[in-house]
Amino acid sequence: MDRRNFFKTVGGGMLASGTILGVPGIVQPEKVYGSSKGMKLTYEVKKLQLRNTWTIARNSSNFKNNVFVKLEKDGIIGIGEAAPNIRYNESTESTIDTIKKAIPIFNNANPNDFVELGYEIKKICKDQTAAKCALDIALMDWVGKSYQLPLHKLWGLNPKKGPLTSFSIGIDKPKVVIQKTKDAEPYKILKVKLGKGDDEGMIKAVRSVAPNKPIRVDINEGWTDKEKAIKKIEWLVKNGVEFVEQPMPSSMLKETRWLRDRSPIPLIADEAVKNAHDIPKLAEAYDGINIKIMKSAGLQEALRMIWIAKSLNLKIMIGCMIASSVSISAAAQLSSLIDYADLDGNLLISNDPFLGVKVIDGRLVLNDKFGIGVNEI
Amino acid sequence: MDRRNFFKTVGGGMLASGTILGVPGIVQPEKVYGSSKGMKLTYEVKKLQLRNTWTIARNSSNFKNNVFVKLEKDGIIGIGEAAPNIRYNESTESTIDTIKKAIPIFNNANPNDFVELGYEIKKICKDQTAAKCALDIALMDWVGKSYQLPLHKLWGLNPKKGPLTSFSIGIDKPKVVIQKTKDAEPYKILKVKLGKGDDEGMIKAVRSVAPNKPIRVDINEGWTDKEKAIKKIEWLVKNGVEFVEQPMPSSMLKETRWLRDRSPIPLIADEAVKNAHDIPKLAEAYDGINIKIMKSAGLQEALRMIWIAKSLNLKIMIGCMIASSVSISAAAQLSSLIDYADLDGNLLISNDPFLGVKVIDGRLVLNDKFGIGVNEI
Repeated sequence: MDRRNFFKTVGGGMLASGTILGVPGIVQPEKVYGSSKGMKLTYEVKKLQLRNTWTIARNSSNFKNNVFVKLEKDGIIGIGEAAPNIRYNESTESTIDTIKKAIPIFNNANPNDFVELGYEIKKICKDQTAAKCALDIALMDWVGKSYQLPLHKLWGLNPKKGPLTSFSIGIDKPKVVIQKTKDAEPYKILKVKLGKGDDEGMIKAVRSVAPNKPIRVDINEGWTDKEKAIKKIEWLVKNGVEFVEQPMPSSMLKETRWLRDRSPIPLIADEAVKNAHDIPKLAEAYDGINIKIMKSAGLQEALRMIWIAKSLNLKIMIGCMIASSVSISAAAQLSSLIDYADLDGNLLISNDPFLGVKVIDGRLVLNDKFGIGVNEI
Repeated sequence: MDRRNFFKTVGGGMLASGTILGVPGIVQPEKVYGSSKGMKLTYEVKKLQLRNTWTIARNSSNFKNNVFVKLEKDGIIGIGEAAPNIRYNESTESTIDTIKKAIPIFNNANPNDFVELGYEIKKICKDQTAAKCALDIALMDWVGKSYQLPLHKLWGLNPKKGPLTSFSIGIDKPKVVIQKTKDAEPYKILKVKLGKGDDEGMIKAVRSVAPNKPIRVDINEGWTDKEKAIKKIEWLVKNGVEFVEQPMPSSMLKETRWLRDRSPIPLIADEAVKNAHDIPKLAEAYDGINIKIMKSAGLQEALRMIWIAKSLNLKIMIGCMIASSVSISAAAQLSSLIDYADLDGNLLISNDPFLGVKVIDGRLVLNDKFGIGVNEI
């Protein structure tokens, strides 16, 4: 493969420089050239189409405008992706703004010092972790390609030890939920979104066609009454639910601890945990954490979070946003270290521009390609 | 350099197989051959001569019998070292016993899965972290050489960002302490051992010839009365001491917290912290931790400890036992991530069989050699 042609355009030709189009098309990367020593950083927006309208406790959507970056140096290109999330005040625009601020940093950067560079990226601005994640994925992809190692090998991880991944069922009418559950037949574990109205109806619909499949539920901060929450959990346990993700708002730490003391199944923090610094204080209110590279600002911080969670005896889940195989394959590099995988973001879209990690018999299967192991379809 | 001849004998010829000799000589590695897939693990004991009799709060010594291992596969040899410490019930014999138990593990191991292999080594037996450290250093040295990367590069660390290292002054008579302090002139920071008798006399002796040099003190659990301890600290502060390492026994966590609440300078945990699991509970009693690869069972756990300490806003020191350039160069690979370095173990011995990291103008200077960056003199 010619590395220089690695980042071809997808689904259309090159369009006007710098514009962002609201169609499933392409924006030509800005031509920003770094010094010969540094890295050239460019970006483009791609519209990812959802297979089904996607509803969680917070909002609904039919498509996702994700921002892709490339980092180029010495003929090697690293690819990254940002999946901005409105929950964290992220938009396509704020993501691009953040990426632009990183251009001079990469122009003067030595990618081999990727830890230091990762910290510099974090300091660009407050939050905007999706943009920073795109930069970190691209950086680590570049490093892996430069060292001619898949990232899981750089980190010494056995690619054969990944867990089964769950497949997510969004909130919808029973008829649609039943169809989605049928479509999810190849996946061994379901993750059902609850927290917005008829939780029992959702589970009953899923159970009508998948009576024995392991189910996990994600409340997305949708419950605000601890007494009602514990009753819901007791009902869910009777219906074979394995664990509950983010049952209450992240701000309700005390109530969540109360709930954890009473819950027969684990509570997993999601919105309550973004990065390594958040973890120690959560250890008394949750049984585990859901690490997402879009929240942690990238792979490097995600790996650090894994070590910290392990030292606190917390269960580790790796989740995702709706995103292409770039993000999913990047996160999957860490999968041998975790207890639960929920890396189905690329399976929920119909026009994934990239090919990377595969799901075979419900299990994440990494390839031997360098870096994050992705190329374009 | 022919890698196959990398691990030549030092200071004498090859001696009888398997014997351990109490002279500054060599023991021929046991010839234990692994499968063609696995790694061949051999060991030998080397007697390291101390430049001066070494006294700390706990004990005195004139030499150190350290155990060296090599791991061989595909013509690449990784080197490791164990510096057994009586404080942790380690001896040359118990170290060799532990290494022997690892032979079948390495015979069947894939070194690329070094995280998993590291966990397997930890499970060999309880404790005996020096032996496990030797195995982990050798494993990571092999990995670095196999990937043709210095370990600091594998970990993305800038080799130019290491801190100054302190030089240690053991407990002795004032005349000897004065001479040691004079000999330590090239080093910009001194670490003075206290906790056994005349602490004030030690500091006065050092200050008589180094009136302005930064001093850190290490009590090695030597103080057991918190009221006396705070008075000692107040006196030390007046004499320009920067921080106090392990002031009280590791079991006296409550008293140490009391002391920390009153101490104007940081308290650094040493004997109280061995591995990642120990760190969270220490965060309220200490301001920082002293990571030693001989305590953590190796480099991989040391790196994990760094991330955990950072997430808890703890200062990070890397210390060492009395050991050759193998251990010191291995630990120094992490030095760009830390606040305080105390990596002088190889400077305290007169017959270091290896050449690795150098101290120039008091600063650790890493080389670009693969793995831990060491070869024999």
